[in-house]
Parts: sequence; C-alpha cells; structure tokens
Amino acid sequence: MASSLASAASTLPSLQLSAKYSSLHINAARTNATLQAACTWGRSPARPVTNLYPRTTDGGMNRLTCNDDDESVRDWFISETQKYGCHHKVDEMGNIFAIRPGQNNNLPPIDTQPTGGKYDGILGVICGMEVLQVLHENNITTYAPVAVVNWTNEEGARFPPAMLCSGVWGGEFSVNYAHGRQDPEGESLGEELKRIGYLGSTPWEPTKTQDPAHFEVHIEQGPILDVAEKPVRIVKGVQSIRWYNISITGRESHTGTTPMDRRSDALLGAAKIIVETNRIVTENEVAARGGRATIAVINSSPQSINTIAGKVSLGLDIRAPADSDVELIEQQCRSGFEKICRSHGLQMTFDNFWISPALNFDATMVGCVKQSATELGCDIEIVSGAGHNSVYTSRKVPMAMIFVRCRDGVSHHPAEFSREEDCAAGAQALLGAYLRYDDYIRRSTAKI
Amino acid sequence: MASSLASAASTLPSLQLSAKYSSLHINAARTNATLQAACTWGRSPARPVTNLYPRTTDGGMNRLTCNDDDESVRDWFISETQKYGCHHKVDEMGNIFAIRPGQNNNLPPIDTQPTGGKYDGILGVICGMEVLQVLHENNITTYAPVAVVNWTNEEGARFPPAMLCSGVWGGEFSVNYAHGRQDPEGESLGEELKRIGYLGSTPWEPTKTQDPAHFEVHIEQGPILDVAEKPVRIVKGVQSIRWYNISITGRESHTGTTPMDRRSDALLGAAKIIVETNRIVTENEVAARGGRATIAVINSSPQSINTIAGKVSLGLDIRAPADSDVELIEQQCRSGFEKICRSHGLQMTFDNFWISPALNFDATMVGCVKQSATELGCDIEIVSGAGHNSVYTSRKVPMAMIFVRCRDGVSHHPAEFSREEDCAAGAQALLGAYLRYDDYIRRSTAKI
Repeated sequence: MASSLASAASTLPSLQLSAKYSSLHINAARTNATLQAACTWGRSPARPVTNLYPRTTDGGMNRLTCNDDDESVRDWFISETQKYGCHHKVDEMGNIFAIRPGQNNNLPPIDTQPTGGKYDGILGVICGMEVLQVLHENNITTYAPVAVVNWTNEEGARFPPAMLCSGVWGGEFSVNYAHGRQDPEGESLGEELKRIGYLGSTPWEPTKTQDPAHFEVHIEQGPILDVAEKPVRIVKGVQSIRWYNISITGRESHTGTTPMDRRSDALLGAAKIIVETNRIVTENEVAARGGRATIAVINSSPQSINTIAGKVSLGLDIRAPADSDVELIEQQCRSGFEKICRSHGLQMTFDNFWISPALNFDATMVGCVKQSATELGCDIEIVSGAGHNSVYTSRKVPMAMIFVRCRDGVSHHPAEFSREEDCAAGAQALLGAYLRYDDYIRRSTAKI
Repeated sequence: MASSLASAASTLPSLQLSAKYSSLHINAARTNATLQAACTWGRSPARPVTNLYPRTTDGGMNRLTCNDDDESVRDWFISETQKYGCHHKVDEMGNIFAIRPGQNNNLPPIDTQPTGGKYDGILGVICGMEVLQVLHENNITTYAPVAVVNWTNEEGARFPPAMLCSGVWGGEFSVNYAHGRQDPEGESLGEELKRIGYLGSTPWEPTKTQDPAHFEVHIEQGPILDVAEKPVRIVKGVQSIRWYNISITGRESHTGTTPMDRRSDALLGAAKIIVETNRIVTENEVAARGGRATIAVINSSPQSINTIAGKVSLGLDIRAPADSDVELIEQQCRSGFEKICRSHGLQMTFDNFWISPALNFDATMVGCVKQSATELGCDIEIVSGAGHNSVYTSRKVPMAMIFVRCRDGVSHHPAEFSREEDCAAGAQALLGAYLRYDDYIRRSTAKI
C-alpha cells in the first residue's frame, strides 16, 4: 500500500540478536493449544442468557467484559502466567499486567497485549504467553522485565466506547468516566469489575521518561495478507480517521401524486451522496494513496412505501494513511454533496464528530519488527486501517504492531480464523522483535 | 398528464340538467362552516394521550378510527344529516349511510363519500352534506334517493390496512378479518366499534344489478391543480400500482481494513439501485407517459459506522396510468438492479407483494363530472396517482371522482389546506354531476 508515512526502519543500524537470543523459537502447536484453552470460556456464557447476551452456537465467542466467563479466563490467565515466573498487577480498570522479572527490575517492563474474540485481540495475549513460555523453558532472564497485558473492554461491545481501558491508561478517559459506563441493562463497568474481583486498587501510571515499550500482535482484520499469502506484516502506523454525521432534509410527499420533477426526495439525494463518496475514493487521485470512504449507517423517515422520504441521516467514515488526504476527501465529499443537494432542493448539515489523526509508530521498534519479520520472508510495511489499543497507549509509550493473516480478512464474526502456522509466525515475529528491543535497551543503558 | 385510458365522456350524449336542477347552487361559506364544525373534534383527543395517540398542537387532526372523538363526530354527522331529511343505516363495519329519500325509493341511493383528516377524506363528506342541504332548502325530491357515506378507517392509520371498510364493502376483505384487525396496543376494530356504539347489525350488500352509483370528492394530494391554478379536476381512473420488497445481500467487513476493490457493499448497491430507479422514470420513454417509481423505505444492517453494510432491504413503489407501463418499469428496474448487483458481488431478491391494476371509472358518471366541471372552467381529465376507497367500491358500483386543489399538493400533514373557494368548487362540481346522474337514472328508468 502507498503511504506518506516515512519508512521507519530505513535509517536504523542493524538490530542483530545476541547469540543467546537468536537460538530461541516458539512452539507452534503449543501456541495453538494455549489459544484453544483460552476459548474454553465464552461458548456457554455463565451469565444469564438474554437477547443481549445470547448463547453462541456457531463457533464464535461471547465473552463480554466482566461476565462470569471473562472472570474465569482472567483467573486462568493469571494462573498460567504464574507458571512462567510472572507476578501480577491489576489496575483500577481491571487491566492485568503479568510481569516476568528481568536482570534490571528498575526498568519498566516491555509489554505485549490484548483481549477480545477468538483471534481478534486474544491472539495478542496468546503470542505474549508463548513468548513467556519460551523464555521460561530456556531459563532466559531478559535485561528488562517483560509483561503481558490483558486490557479490559477492548471492543467496547458491552461498555462503549471501544478501547476504553487502554484509553484510561493513555489519558483519553478518566477513571470515573470509565467506571460509570453502563451496558444496555444499566450495569456499570466499575460495579461489574468489583463483582468479578478485578477492580484493582493501584493506579498504573505510565511515564514516557521510564522508556518502557509496547508490542501488539493483532489479526489484520482485512484481506491484504490473505491475498498476498503472507503470514505476518510489519505495521508502521495507524491511518488517519474521521467520522461524520450528515443530515439531509427534503419534503415528504405522496409517491403516487407527486410528479417526478416536483420532488425533494431526501433518500434519492442520500443515494447519490453514497455513490459520490465511493466515486471520490475509487476515481480521484486519493485512490492511489490508499484513501477510503464509506457510508454504512443510514436512517430514513418516515419509512412509508408511498411517502417520499423527507429526512435521511448518514454516517460517513473517511480514512487515509495521511491526515492531508483525509482532509482532501472531506473537502471533495462536502463539495460533491452540496452540489447534489442543490440540484434536488435538499438542505444538508455536515458534522465531523470524531477525529483520530494518523499515528506513526516508534522507529526503533518498527525496525525490530522489520528485522524479525524479514527472517520469516515478510518485509512489507503496512499502515493499519483500523484503530487499536495502540492509538491510546502510543501517547504514553513507544509502540509497534505485527499483523497476522486472517482468512478472507474476516473479523468480528464467528467465521474469523487464522491458521496455526500464521499464529505461530506472529508469535515468532513478536519473539524476535521483543528480544531485539531488549538487546537495544541493554545496549542503550550500557552506554549511559 | 398523458394516459392510455380512453377519454370517458367523448362518446356520450349531452347530459344537460333539467330546468329544476340547473338553478341550484351550493353555499361556499356554509360548506366551509360545516368543515370547521366537523373539526371541533380531533384537536384534543378524549382518548388517553400516549405516544401512539399524541395531542395535536399544530393545527392537524388526530381523530383515529373509533377513538372518542370519532364517536362524537359520528353522532354529529347523524344529527346534522337528520335535519336535511335523512334516515341512517350503520353496517357491520361501522360505515354510516345517511339516506335522503327520492321519488323512487325502490332504487338504491346515489352516494357521495368518505372520512379522514381535515381536508383529506373529510372534504368528501362535507361536500356531500352541502349537497343534502341544497336539496333540503330548495325542497327538492330527487328521482333516486341520495346517501352520504362515512366510511370507517379510510387511512388505516390505527387499524391497517388502508380502505379496510370500503374494502369489506367491495368484497376485498371479510367482515371477520376486518373486525380482528388490531391497533398497536392490541385493541381490535370490532371491539372498538362496539365500544363507541357503531357496530351495525345489518350487512350492506351492494349489487351491481341495482345500478346505484358512487361519486367521491377528494383533495388531489398532489401539486398538479395548484400549479395549474384550477380548483377542481375530473378524475377518469386510478393509476396502476405495484409494490415490491427488494433485499440485497453483500458481505460485512471493516471499513478501515477492506480495500475499496475488495468490497461487497450492500448499501452502495442499494444507493445505485435508488439512483437507477429514478433514472428509469425520468429518462426512459415511460417518463412521458406518466410513469413514477420511488424507493422510500430502506433498512440497512448492521448500522455500524465502521462495518460495511452486509444486508439492505428496500421498498419500491411503481405507478403508471397503464398496467403495461408498470410492467415495463418493473422489467427495466429488475434488469438494471441485477446488473448493479453483479458488478458489486451482491445477491438480490425482488418480490412483488401487492398489485392494484389500473382502474377506469364509469364513462357516464365521468361524463356527468366533466360537464359539471366544465361549467366551472375545469375540463381537464386526470388519472389519480393515489389509491382511494373507489378502488374497492368500483368493484360493486359505477364510480367517478372529483379532485379539489390543495396547497402545494400537501396531504397527510398538518399543513394540508384547501381554500374555501376551492372546496366550494368541489361541492358545486359534485352537485352538478350528481344531479345530471339523477336525471340520467330518471330518463333510463322511464325508457324501461
């Protein structure tokens, strides 16, 4: 994919592994077994089965934040990581940090992450657990301590918004705001964390000066790796994203009695706006630079088959690797939409309600990932199209990400699947990148 | 408007009024006063005010079928029409027939009609009441008896579908089906008719051999008369109408991670279908023959701003004066939609769930309306774009309609308005057409 982000690793010196580290390899079968074990909980929720929390029968997972299955898998995560020499911290948001000591325990730990569906999210935790096991079985004591982080409520499916607890950690949300978020039945996250025993008392306060670092492994949630038949890819940043509400007002009138040339049909205008949005990002110059724009939310009224729509609202999602291209797509959309509305006698409002600027990951860490992934035959860099916990955590600590191939690019769906060998490649890329960075920290500290 | 329906009156002999009838004129101020009196009930519903039945504050009417205001206005209608020499029949559906005897009471009455909003529907009843008053004050005994009909539940707003009780009369629905229709609170029409005391015991059984006839006055519900600045127009039939459900299935995927060229976006496909529908009836040859097609119902899922729509359903309304043009538009839509779906990898179902064929009104009655309306300077014939009670009643008796100008073509809205002089023209056109038809019946019977 074309991108305006600088190639992160190009200016870095070689980050070769030390002899001790270069012989280490992950165990593919064990990684897969750990993943399957983690999915023991979530198929039959212990929580009362209601319309909000249906029992899954399709191979998908239902382990919403703070339900009883989430409690069980948290207990399992702590018990398993204890076996590999970890102690644990649980912060005020229920984020769990499984910390394995290093040679220099004054240093903050290097982290690997998160939580979610069967692959989406959870694969990151599983890869982190495999790294811990490789270190443990080889009696390795790394220079800095290492931690695997289980973030609470990554998807926001039960307690919106998404990435709530990494957001608290990153300073986007206050603890009080996050504790007060309610599910559709009116239960709050704070109360539910308390109920399952994961309302930690000590705040986790990251500081950039301590120079810890986070690596995140995640399924791609897109089809690029699957089409390219590559198991992993280096993620050098996250796309720029903006969300908009568009409201179109026309005039309700009778479909049978209103001549075609005397209509102000809000749904016809909305349809032309959806087509124009697609045209801009497939035909204009932004197409070649990875611009994307989508309308996937529509509400029309009065929704009567013989009354021309008087009011339609749309949700618009614009993305591109560069902030400037998101701005360009926004300008072209606004101008195109205004022209459509003028020609149909429609009124429009165009409201940008959310901005997430383009994010560049840490150059040294991206370099570590690149050298590790290149050993697996995967040297292509990509800009993530989706937001991740990294959007928030990167405000506090250096970040890099590794994407793992998923079948047909499907995520957030029971059909979500990554092959054992692709998951293993993700764990191996993480191990190599992490060990390189631990070496880098050791050498940097030694220089001081 | 161009039309394939034959000009009804062209082959008829002159239907001149007799000397006695030709001197009669309606009273415009009285017609308006009757209309305003009828709207005494409905502004503050006596029924409990709930979300379903809100109190109106905008000048509109809320007098849903069988609420307490509907009961009051029915009582008023009976009491008023008694003053003009009428007796009454109430049938099993609560339809009220106010019958004024003629010289030959073995004949069935000639009817004028219906019920509804402040102008939509109710104007027909008011014009009929004014005709009764003109006959009464001039001591006229017509040849056949005359009746004004107040149809129950014309709009179907409380008890769907629309035109339910004229539908029972016309043989479309059974009495049991109609009695069992429920409002959103679960109350049935049969029980509610009983509650307000308008569940009649005698069935009204129209038979074509008896040769009664129905005239209907209705606001146009469209802008053609308002643009032409004409108070009334001759309606020679009702357009052909078909309704369709269209379902489009694509593939849900992430807006951020799915490249533009790897999407099956059901909402983009639906948008192109809406635009194509409009193109067919504005650019193809059916445009010049009055073809209309509209999509005003849309449901998209999953309605998440960052998930491309996987499923969209649409409601399509096709109309034209000729059945053959509705079929042609259907063919062009289906073919165009299939092409769009193929190019986006979408699946489509296309289901025609309702057909209302084109309806030609009775040539003699349309001729009576034409001669009466021509005296008012209005000699243009029109095909109704909307369905009316006449669609059902015309199955049993000869029908004709008169449209009255309404401001901006607005109906089904508090802003619905017809000027006093336009309402009066409607009543005068009805009086002239009705008296001509009464003369025609007298002459026809005399010949036998």
